[in-house]
Amino acid sequence: MNSTLLLQPGSIAFGPDCLKKLAEDRLISVSERILLLVATPVLGAVEAPVAVMKAAGKSVEVFEYNFPGEPTFALFDTLVEKTKPFNADCIVGVGGGSVLDCAKLLAALTHNTQKLEDVVGIGFLNGRSMKLICAPTTAGTGSEMSPNAILLNEVTMAKSGIISPYLVPDTVYIDPALTVSLPSRLTAETGMDALCHCIEAFTNKFAHPAVDTYALRGIGLIAENLEKACKDGADMDARSALALGSMYGGMVLGPVNTSAVHALSYGLGGKFHVPHGLANAILLPEVLRFNMSADVKRHAELAIALGVAPQATDEATALAGIEKVEAISKACGIPQHLTEIGITEEVLPELADIAMNVTRLLNNNPRVVTKEDAIAIYKKLL
Amino acid sequence: MNSTLLLQPGSIAFGPDCLKKLAEDRLISVSERILLLVATPVLGAVEAPVAVMKAAGKSVEVFEYNFPGEPTFALFDTLVEKTKPFNADCIVGVGGGSVLDCAKLLAALTHNTQKLEDVVGIGFLNGRSMKLICAPTTAGTGSEMSPNAILLNEVTMAKSGIISPYLVPDTVYIDPALTVSLPSRLTAETGMDALCHCIEAFTNKFAHPAVDTYALRGIGLIAENLEKACKDGADMDARSALALGSMYGGMVLGPVNTSAVHALSYGLGGKFHVPHGLANAILLPEVLRFNMSADVKRHAELAIALGVAPQATDEATALAGIEKVEAISKACGIPQHLTEIGITEEVLPELADIAMNVTRLLNNNPRVVTKEDAIAIYKKLL
Repeated sequence: MNSTLLLQPGSIAFGPDCLKKLAEDRLISVSERILLLVATPVLGAVEAPVAVMKAAGKSVEVFEYNFPGEPTFALFDTLVEKTKPFNADCIVGVGGGSVLDCAKLLAALTHNTQKLEDVVGIGFLNGRSMKLICAPTTAGTGSEMSPNAILLNEVTMAKSGIISPYLVPDTVYIDPALTVSLPSRLTAETGMDALCHCIEAFTNKFAHPAVDTYALRGIGLIAENLEKACKDGADMDARSALALGSMYGGMVLGPVNTSAVHALSYGLGGKFHVPHGLANAILLPEVLRFNMSADVKRHAELAIALGVAPQATDEATALAGIEKVEAISKACGIPQHLTEIGITEEVLPELADIAMNVTRLLNNNPRVVTKEDAIAIYKKLL
Repeated sequence: MNSTLLLQPGSIAFGPDCLKKLAEDRLISVSERILLLVATPVLGAVEAPVAVMKAAGKSVEVFEYNFPGEPTFALFDTLVEKTKPFNADCIVGVGGGSVLDCAKLLAALTHNTQKLEDVVGIGFLNGRSMKLICAPTTAGTGSEMSPNAILLNEVTMAKSGIISPYLVPDTVYIDPALTVSLPSRLTAETGMDALCHCIEAFTNKFAHPAVDTYALRGIGLIAENLEKACKDGADMDARSALALGSMYGGMVLGPVNTSAVHALSYGLGGKFHVPHGLANAILLPEVLRFNMSADVKRHAELAIALGVAPQATDEATALAGIEKVEAISKACGIPQHLTEIGITEEVLPELADIAMNVTRLLNNNPRVVTKEDAIAIYKKLL
């Protein structure tokens, strides 16, 4: 067994309505000036904890995050400028992946001599001076568990990853009740993203038994519950299972991370503004078909984790697993073709070029992906 | 799904020889005065990292832990007295459960106005001023992952638990190479203890899906590898799997914890000095037989996790699981009867009285255990 490093929040509160107890948090109790970065739809969820914090004599500022699309470098600079005067010692992010990624970077960069441009890549961040609490409002990104933040460089239109141990939050609140109001389409897309994290970690070239634990369990939970949550958003058991699966999807991102699906989706997101989860959901089955031959047994194990009954051969089991992924995706209303989201054949070489640059993730893929392979995968999905 | 709180080290390095990189740890780099509490057999393992720390200008003291049996209150006071003058800002514990429990308490109490007697129980500790790193040298206790420390009150001969979020280490090194020199008997006893943690968390009255993840995986890893490691101590794959299973056994102790097996073993350990893992190993199958009726389906799931093939009924599957636990225990050379370790019928009422006082754990048991039940369980094991 190889060595691995698991970085994770030291405290994870999990369960419906757990965010209501935010004001009692150990980290809040030792903070004086608390800045909450909160997505618009969940502003109501922080009202009561904020009132308790203020009654306890804390200085609290709620900054509403209401910016559409993926956060850009320019947006982040604006956030720093607007929140810096408050001089917080603790940042609380409440929202989807964009909000959490910004909260994580604010905690690390607001009082730092390093600029955003200095820290793009793996391990360049020199520290984080503010305490950091994250509460996800989608079951998808897993940002609350990971050392990753992704921003869009609006000049190059490239998605840029900032990866650092200092971006792992200290404390996390995973409150499935916050995801109940999420529309079915977003539930489906973010859920497929979480499934993708788990699958890409399990089939990864650098898969590790200590990470498989999370990946396999996440795969099972999401496969069993995504359709339920899409069809009945108020099904709290399904929402809770998805939240847990998404948490596991986040846990795998640090030590192992994703591979070709996420690499091939970079251009779809960065250049064509296809929502991240949707892009991954469309790509996932075809990339699995491409990867399968690299390790048929592993892909059969994936199928079993998805809930597929073992077939006569590992190959048949693995294929049944891929069909199960497609069936879940379809049942949740996810488009299955790139043409349905406005992608046409002539842009495929450009998409493939962008993907080829994401070597950080392509290197994780169990099978080498050439530019021609990438174009062939996209083409099958037209 | 209910709410739960997972407390865990923010950083877990896992893998053979990972402790060799201790000197490069982020926490070490921000410490000035580092005290290592190290079990005698692994003193050699810290020599190289200590040399690197000293070369980097750190003040380092290695304190050898060579005390037999379970640590007592008096021993702990001696440890404080002897290590306090060094004025460490970071404690590193390297050893089995006794060493780690002492290291955890030293980090919290050395510079604290609270005394050991003040903090026995759940949640009484008011903080921890020293940074804390733990590296287990057995695959058993799980102390490195948990908020628990257990000392023996030598006056009352009762084992006393100190439970606090402040006792969860900041950073953990789980290095299976450190367990290679562990004799077969200790491998078996500590491994059965880890298995017991996972099983008692999974069959617990307060079991939780977020904790089942660890418990089920730990059960599978230990069931598959304990005999291998006992028969060939140098089998690094088996040692690594056990180390991972033991880590999961530690993770379940905070949010769910153990139940009747651990309660019934208190007297065996505290009064008759039976090694902790051995006491639990002898009790485990009979307690499972007693508990099974409380939730047959759950005990059947446990059996599947142990690697048992599903039988015609859940009851048959569950029973096959208990037989599997017995078979593993026997194959590893563990005695199956209390008389083999010197326990005779006349002391059973006293053992039962001690067990009845461990309400903290008995409350977790899926079935109510009366004093008569406890005596009946002990009796079957004579």
